[in-house]
Amino acid sequence: MTLDDLQRRLAGFATARDWQRFHTPKNLVMALSGEVGELTALFQWLTPAESASVLEDPATRAAVLDELADVTIYLARLADVLGVDLLEAAEAKVNRNESRFPVDRFD
Amino acid sequence: MTLDDLQRRLAGFATARDWQRFHTPKNLVMALSGEVGELTALFQWLTPAESASVLEDPATRAAVLDELADVTIYLARLADVLGVDLLEAAEAKVNRNESRFPVDRFD
Amino acid sequence: MTLDDLQRRLAGFATARDWQRFHTPKNLVMALSGEVGELTALFQWLTPAESASVLEDPATRAAVLDELADVTIYLARLADVLGVDLLEAAEAKVNRNESRFPVDRFD
Amino acid sequence: MTLDDLQRRLAGFATARDWQRFHTPKNLVMALSGEVGELTALFQWLTPAESASVLEDPATRAAVLDELADVTIYLARLADVLGVDLLEAAEAKVNRNESRFPVDRFD
Repeated sequence: MTLDDLQRRLAGFATARDWQRFHTPKNLVMALSGEVGELTALFQWLTPAESASVLEDPATRAAVLDELADVTIYLARLADVLGVDLLEAAEAKVNRNESRFPVDRFD
Repeated sequence: MTLDDLQRRLAGFATARDWQRFHTPKNLVMALSGEVGELTALFQWLTPAESASVLEDPATRAAVLDELADVTIYLARLADVLGVDLLEAAEAKVNRNESRFPVDRFD
Repeated sequence: MTLDDLQRRLAGFATARDWQRFHTPKNLVMALSGEVGELTALFQWLTPAESASVLEDPATRAAVLDELADVTIYLARLADVLGVDLLEAAEAKVNRNESRFPVDRFD
Repeated sequence: MTLDDLQRRLAGFATARDWQRFHTPKNLVMALSGEVGELTALFQWLTPAESASVLEDPATRAAVLDELADVTIYLARLADVLGVDLLEAAEAKVNRNESRFPVDRFD
């Protein structure tokens, strides 16, 4: 499944339930933010080292995958409603970051 | 550029600057959360209707694209470090949501 | 109960359970952020007008009060661990804002 | 300055600038969330140990105090607009937490 496929599927899902009226960019930004908050809660008491093996426990793994899915879903839906190509925007930003943070400054 | 391409590029970017040591899942969750906060700030005083035309103003458009890019970048990087396939996780979640919210309940 | 009283009570609560080791500023910022995410989720689909009467429904009222309590608790605890006086910092910021946003510009 | 004093001052500040129309609970939750995002960004690359001495550097200290002030301001303003007593809500929650997490389970 590509990001485009996911966005088409989410648009159909919203249309079938008449949920487009809730899917304003403002509301979707809040939904994205709420899901990132739930993801954050899963990591808040872990040391950085513990966070690197967070997927080893099956219950925590399921919870992390579920929150990452929700974050991806609302980010994809928000971008679709706004008409923004996320991967193109990200590529443009990485290009700008290559100039802002030249490798030789970090050698 | 696919999500995979973006993740490979971000991994190379981090390696070239020796930034992998900062890129623990815990830190990347915080970076994702910080960027979502900046995105939220762009929408906080807008009405839902105003938020739907947020890209019409060129300066706001650039700011929104920039924050969406940063959110995408940290989400992609976090998933790569964890070894999670975001699109697969999202697809599995949409499948579960189809069962949790059957269309006929919303007709 | 004053903010100082709350902070003393929270410090005692953490000490009695040997939770100070989890209460680094980094972790407490994440806990604060997670609780704000849960608060955000309660408001995400409401219109601004609906959000103004969010306390009228008893179940939603209890949920909103619970999340506001959690946000207050982690903000108070974070400030205590850092040794920051929140009300003094807020007063200093309001003073700066009086200069940044003079009233006559908004008449 | 007490929390009540701060809330009265913030209400006057908003009235003098005719900003009450922006201060719906929904918008204020977003503003709170945005400020917590900025606070998070200041801590994202720090180790937990580094985060404990974050106030030692004068520039970082000023930035952290500024964000804590903004978080306090929007939380106080949100509670005032909703008519919620934050300290009472927090005290009630700590009382519930005393029952949920009895000390002897953590001895």
